[in-house]
Amino acid sequence: MTIDTAGLEVLGRPECLRLLAAAPIGRIVFSDRALPAVQPVNFALYGTDIVVRTAPESRLARATRDAVVAFEVDDFDVAARTGWSVMVVGIARAVTDPDEIAELAVLPLDPWAPGPKPHLIRIETDIVTGRRIPA
Amino acid sequence: MTIDTAGLEVLGRPECLRLLAAAPIGRIVFSDRALPAVQPVNFALYGTDIVVRTAPESRLARATRDAVVAFEVDDFDVAARTGWSVMVVGIARAVTDPDEIAELAVLPLDPWAPGPKPHLIRIETDIVTGRRIPA
Repeated sequence: MTIDTAGLEVLGRPECLRLLAAAPIGRIVFSDRALPAVQPVNFALYGTDIVVRTAPESRLARATRDAVVAFEVDDFDVAARTGWSVMVVGIARAVTDPDEIAELAVLPLDPWAPGPKPHLIRIETDIVTGRRIPA
Repeated sequence: MTIDTAGLEVLGRPECLRLLAAAPIGRIVFSDRALPAVQPVNFALYGTDIVVRTAPESRLARATRDAVVAFEVDDFDVAARTGWSVMVVGIARAVTDPDEIAELAVLPLDPWAPGPKPHLIRIETDIVTGRRIPA
């Protein structure tokens, strides 16, 4: 077990990807008109890529076309004061190729928010880091 | 009840601040060497300012000295596919004045992560927005 300078357990890439795959909600971090922005989304993994569904005219769609974004998942136990978090940094792009759209259609990716969300965002998991607060 | 173009309920500033005050964990969004970064933290409110405790030499402390940051809290019900999120955008600064440090010492702000965390970050809640997925 590796501990960082802050006393947190360092999670390896395989464990980070396992936690990412099991998380129901993640938070996508982007820049919106030069200000930091963050939005929770449900998502699916395709291989190791994160796939998010939104409306084409949304702020999120607009801000994630060929942009570097962060993506975060976490889970905390308030009573035990423990938990973990995983952060991804990678390039987000709009999925526009019809073959790729058809390929990603198999994903269990049904948005929680109402309204049609045909726009797909695909994020590469270039940098993956994770930490756990030791019990 | 106001609904936005995405079909989500728009939460007013008073409700956002109430939800913020009750959340045990928030996520601070900042830039780390020009890349987007996000880190979960426990926090306290002092008036309407967010106060976070960390180590002086931490990445978070370094990146939040007079910087515009975002701060996010949320809560989701996975089974019901509902939930809410609140996002703050504001200026973060290091608290260095001894009187202000003493003033903030009354806060119930005991970090979950191990190790000494004497460095205080104070974030103004300049812009506060919130959304809820209707049931």
